[in-house]
Amino acid sequence: MSAFRVLKSEREARLAVLETLHGAVETPVFMPVGTQGAVKALLARDLKEMGAQIILGNAYHLYLRPGDGLVKEMGGIQRFEGWDGAVLTDSGGYQIFSLGVLRKIQEEGVTFQSHIDGSKHFLTPERVVEIQENLGSDICMCLDECVSYPSSHEYTGASVGLTTRWAARSKASKRNGSQLFGIVQGGMYGDLRLQSARDLLALDFDGYALGGFSVGEPKGVMWEMVDVVMGLLPAERPRYLMGLGFPADIVEGVRKGIDMFDCVIPTRHARNGKLFTSTGRINIKHARFARDETPLDETCRCYTCSHFSKAYLRHLFVTRELTSYYLNTLHNVSFYLGLMKRIREEIKQGRFEAFYNEFMSEWKGGEVHDGLGICNG
Amino acid sequence: MSAFRVLKSEREARLAVLETLHGAVETPVFMPVGTQGAVKALLARDLKEMGAQIILGNAYHLYLRPGDGLVKEMGGIQRFEGWDGAVLTDSGGYQIFSLGVLRKIQEEGVTFQSHIDGSKHFLTPERVVEIQENLGSDICMCLDECVSYPSSHEYTGASVGLTTRWAARSKASKRNGSQLFGIVQGGMYGDLRLQSARDLLALDFDGYALGGFSVGEPKGVMWEMVDVVMGLLPAERPRYLMGLGFPADIVEGVRKGIDMFDCVIPTRHARNGKLFTSTGRINIKHARFARDETPLDETCRCYTCSHFSKAYLRHLFVTRELTSYYLNTLHNVSFYLGLMKRIREEIKQGRFEAFYNEFMSEWKGGEVHDGLGICNG
Repeated sequence: MSAFRVLKSEREARLAVLETLHGAVETPVFMPVGTQGAVKALLARDLKEMGAQIILGNAYHLYLRPGDGLVKEMGGIQRFEGWDGAVLTDSGGYQIFSLGVLRKIQEEGVTFQSHIDGSKHFLTPERVVEIQENLGSDICMCLDECVSYPSSHEYTGASVGLTTRWAARSKASKRNGSQLFGIVQGGMYGDLRLQSARDLLALDFDGYALGGFSVGEPKGVMWEMVDVVMGLLPAERPRYLMGLGFPADIVEGVRKGIDMFDCVIPTRHARNGKLFTSTGRINIKHARFARDETPLDETCRCYTCSHFSKAYLRHLFVTRELTSYYLNTLHNVSFYLGLMKRIREEIKQGRFEAFYNEFMSEWKGGEVHDGLGICNG
Repeated sequence: MSAFRVLKSEREARLAVLETLHGAVETPVFMPVGTQGAVKALLARDLKEMGAQIILGNAYHLYLRPGDGLVKEMGGIQRFEGWDGAVLTDSGGYQIFSLGVLRKIQEEGVTFQSHIDGSKHFLTPERVVEIQENLGSDICMCLDECVSYPSSHEYTGASVGLTTRWAARSKASKRNGSQLFGIVQGGMYGDLRLQSARDLLALDFDGYALGGFSVGEPKGVMWEMVDVVMGLLPAERPRYLMGLGFPADIVEGVRKGIDMFDCVIPTRHARNGKLFTSTGRINIKHARFARDETPLDETCRCYTCSHFSKAYLRHLFVTRELTSYYLNTLHNVSFYLGLMKRIREEIKQGRFEAFYNEFMSEWKGGEVHDGLGICNG
């Protein structure tokens, strides 16, 4: 039996369950980003309380610190982090790509300098699988090459070939019972995206991710690339749009048939005082909130919204209190998880299309999709 | 009936209850420091969960941001901060003293420049009471002058006179039903400490604080000054040793008859990775903890100790994750509150003296008492 079961579809959108070694995950799902051992500013118990089912960890960061061997010795990432839900680890392709001149890509693997201390490292696709198995991930990602935007058709085509060969080596080196996803690349060339998808399908992965976005491309081009690939991906495997996005991107992605999302936006925006509400995004530092006794979002049941006024949140943000980062993050992540719950409910009730139209016409908040650099949490 | 009832004494140490407008506080008590609207890195619900009964706020900081008028409009400090326990506010004397050349003290009041934006402010003893009443404090402190160490007998004597006159003006300006404590000053001169205490006793305050310490004086001199004053303070009023200290200081203070303590040490040390355990203080960044699977303190029941290893806490600290500040602070504050609970229990059972001897012979952790600057959280 497949680990992934579609329960209900509405056009391309689908409600499904993904079984992992650490419980069942209902999709469409948003995975809060716990780059290097923690979802920034939050505790594992908060994530549980707000209904997170799966979080993301980053093989690149955890390999550097504290080291995958150490995490293995400590009983694996779940035990180490006190998190008993599922964990997906990103392979580090995007992070290594973000290092720019500090990395060199060859057939055998990638050489790079650590962003922390400049030390030299060499990682192969096999070693990256081993790192993720040492970490104890439920879902591992193949090492891929993420090309910059714009890149030539020639360079991108050669890169897709490399990513495919690395994917084959990744699969061949897989040892334990966790899942392995392939990552469709191909830059902004439809033919290369199709080729990449076909190559990976032939290797038969547990799921398929769409990678190589958030590198500065126009959003329209990104959605075009998603559309090109979606028709090819098998219905019986989960589809994961990596690194996206704003709430409207997620609603859009679900409508195109995406099942899994991750993004640093809710956590990073929280630390910058940008908070999501059911009517759009606000910046809590704005003076108009100084005497605002109302909660961030009247419809939100998170701890932040049920106990504090905008005036208090603004005060904590302006005075740079650590508690501000905590309360803001608690809310933004709750908001994202709440949005996913709503999406699943709408699909279940066969009302997703109506929800989509309503959301897209009423939502005002942060549509500009910016590059996210080293993508640390 | 007095707001303060002694339930049991053992030599000078006493177990008592202090009634406030926001509930009864069992003493000896430690007040976590919530300088400018939050105990740094914690949530109100954490404080409740770990048994905090009263927290400290700082009139100086809250006057500057967000302003006492705003807090009043928002329903007072408890409602603003989502904290339903008691609040004591420091008058700002110590903070203004810490500003050094930026402040000028005159009979009428004190002129100072904000440490935030350099703006000029003038505060009188009456205005400082009003600020604290606006904030909605359960216990207000009189504005005092805190002299530097060393200061001449002449200067200190004149300063005690001023502090007494300010205390009289503070009392005369008190409007609402909250309590007002006087602050005994007198630097490191026993005769002036006695004079200050006598002057304040004549004014009859709800409680008496010992202030003007943590200014660079040797700890032995500080305890001498405490000893000089303690004999004079009435048994039926709470005694508060301001700004102290390390665990051993608190145990020592209780033995001398002190009822109330506050200090930034547990919170500030937490942010610096210095963590208190039942056998002393450790620095979590130390490499020897990299693979340590045990909790910080086997005997501690806080969330941090019941869920995480030293290896994980070290990793979070080394990678500067915000979650590190949170988990560390949660533990250190729990440790302090646990120590106070233990102290109360020992007094109740008539075993405090035995506990004192055992603690002082076995405890290894951070006895050096350092000046704490602007004293922000």
